[in-house]
Amino acid sequence: MHNIYLISVEFITVLRRLGMKVIVDAMGGDNAPNEIIRGSIEAIKELGVEIILVGKKDIIQDEIKKNNFDNSSIEIINAEDIITNEEEPAMAIRRKKDSSTVVGLNMLKDGLGDAFISAGSTGALLAGGLLIVKRIKGIERAALATVFPTKKRVSLLLDVGANADCKAKYIQQFGLMGSIYSEKVLNVKSPKVGLVNIGTEKEKGSILAKEAYDLLSASNINFYGNIEARDIPEGNVDVIVCDGFVGNVIVKLTEGLAKSIFSELKDMFTKSFFSKLGALMLKSQLKEFKKNFDYREYGGAPLLGIQKPVIKAHGSSDSTAIKNAIRQAKVFIENDVINIIEEEIGKIEYNE
Amino acid sequence: MHNIYLISVEFITVLRRLGMKVIVDAMGGDNAPNEIIRGSIEAIKELGVEIILVGKKDIIQDEIKKNNFDNSSIEIINAEDIITNEEEPAMAIRRKKDSSTVVGLNMLKDGLGDAFISAGSTGALLAGGLLIVKRIKGIERAALATVFPTKKRVSLLLDVGANADCKAKYIQQFGLMGSIYSEKVLNVKSPKVGLVNIGTEKEKGSILAKEAYDLLSASNINFYGNIEARDIPEGNVDVIVCDGFVGNVIVKLTEGLAKSIFSELKDMFTKSFFSKLGALMLKSQLKEFKKNFDYREYGGAPLLGIQKPVIKAHGSSDSTAIKNAIRQAKVFIENDVINIIEEEIGKIEYNE
Repeated sequence: MHNIYLISVEFITVLRRLGMKVIVDAMGGDNAPNEIIRGSIEAIKELGVEIILVGKKDIIQDEIKKNNFDNSSIEIINAEDIITNEEEPAMAIRRKKDSSTVVGLNMLKDGLGDAFISAGSTGALLAGGLLIVKRIKGIERAALATVFPTKKRVSLLLDVGANADCKAKYIQQFGLMGSIYSEKVLNVKSPKVGLVNIGTEKEKGSILAKEAYDLLSASNINFYGNIEARDIPEGNVDVIVCDGFVGNVIVKLTEGLAKSIFSELKDMFTKSFFSKLGALMLKSQLKEFKKNFDYREYGGAPLLGIQKPVIKAHGSSDSTAIKNAIRQAKVFIENDVINIIEEEIGKIEYNE
Repeated sequence: MHNIYLISVEFITVLRRLGMKVIVDAMGGDNAPNEIIRGSIEAIKELGVEIILVGKKDIIQDEIKKNNFDNSSIEIINAEDIITNEEEPAMAIRRKKDSSTVVGLNMLKDGLGDAFISAGSTGALLAGGLLIVKRIKGIERAALATVFPTKKRVSLLLDVGANADCKAKYIQQFGLMGSIYSEKVLNVKSPKVGLVNIGTEKEKGSILAKEAYDLLSASNINFYGNIEARDIPEGNVDVIVCDGFVGNVIVKLTEGLAKSIFSELKDMFTKSFFSKLGALMLKSQLKEFKKNFDYREYGGAPLLGIQKPVIKAHGSSDSTAIKNAIRQAKVFIENDVINIIEEEIGKIEYNE
């Protein structure tokens, strides 16, 4: 019996993989379309997924040719428009029906692909995810989640900017969604969920944080309690929840500090003959050190709480980052994250 | 006429300096009382201020003797109790009438000294500042301000934790108080004030941030607009305002990241013979680099908005940090910051 079960699970997984199609926005991001297309080609070769590229067909075809890749094994869907970072997101989604973002998200909604990845405007992807793909029943707000490099492993941080104003109930749901994603996609067993707060004690913090603490405590997750921002880099929890304003500040401050520290280190290393020599001797270690802070290693940021897998790749994604985001989408699909979220969210009881 | 004016200003300054007394909580902080007392003795020698030490008299006297300092030139006021970090702040202030914090703040209120410095419980100092020294008329909330090291110079960041829940009006007042402090104590001409937000555009952010943007725009300060957290380390603004929850996250995350990066660098540098040699060659630069992130260089965090100068020194302050906090108190007093805040706050018009 046990063997038959194992075989059937394997069989289903193979079946799923066979048909797995990831829709990629070929026109979004600082390095589009060339790096996006190169990353997609690498993913086809390495990960065995099918890719649908959405964007200006002739440009995409030219790029594929440049990479000496067999044109027939990659699907291209034409979209004439591009949504830029400067546009008001919801407005752009409503008006630019023929943009790569809108065309791709509509295909996802209609079941023509299993996930959508874009390195383009974050705001447009969020707005499009909500307006086109729509929220999972029972989910109050979708959240953008990102992995945060820590000493021990990565932590999943959400929300990092989809919701500047939050209610405690939203943060409770972020905890549940983050917990499921961490377990299913990041492979963490019984993930510990921490709440960002300005003190570790239960009674500390803002009104919002106190309410969120109570709801998270009563949830069917492994709630760790409050964590202070100074402990985030320690990696004592697997999932970190907060409102989108605070999450955005955490992600961007980390980015800014890392940038500033690397630039200071660089200045320092080129100051004198001896410092240059010293830096040379530390070259491999410095490289490894920097890698820890490299977003490209960690795939993209999933938008959790909508009905299909949507992943925001970093705006400056290169081919490696895109390939890793596609790998992430694959695991996301394979592990049925969305159905599990839908199931679990139905179990939460609210006393209102 | 001009000369007479200058002479009189100088005369007043000399008079002020002559009588300047800084009250120091000898019992607060991880290194109390020895480092606190050593820092106070250094300040007397270097800065020409008078110091009143508050705490257990016999312990203080012993410590002064150990430092071979003339006992008669330092005033000691006995206080038998100590408020610890574990106590509920407001409760501790109300109950522990004979604690060094309460005795010191009462002396400050009664005009027996010109400023109060403590490296003890932040919460107790905030509560005591509000309950004993009391807010300046017109100030809605007092804010804890700290200097943030940046590429260009330091920025003053407030609130960093006195107010977890804020209204836009409070943040507007933080902007005004921060601007005055930056100009008078940090010596910045027409300081630029930035509002922490999740986007640079006016219409971005939470409801609170948008309202604060409008009020700050209408204020008599040099308002720079929104700044994103990634730009904080760049040092493009002199004063950074936000609610106390976000400010606390910024300060603590910076502390945590710096700690984590230094520990990784250290590991890296001791990995191999060559890396050790490399690190040796970079020794002086590394030291300088680390100094930039050293809180001891920057004095303490002033509690702005109350009727007398109160400064929170870092909990792990050594004698240098205490001496620098005393220097800061001296400049704070000399430049009449509190009277200027009171004057300027009276000029704000609210349409409510």
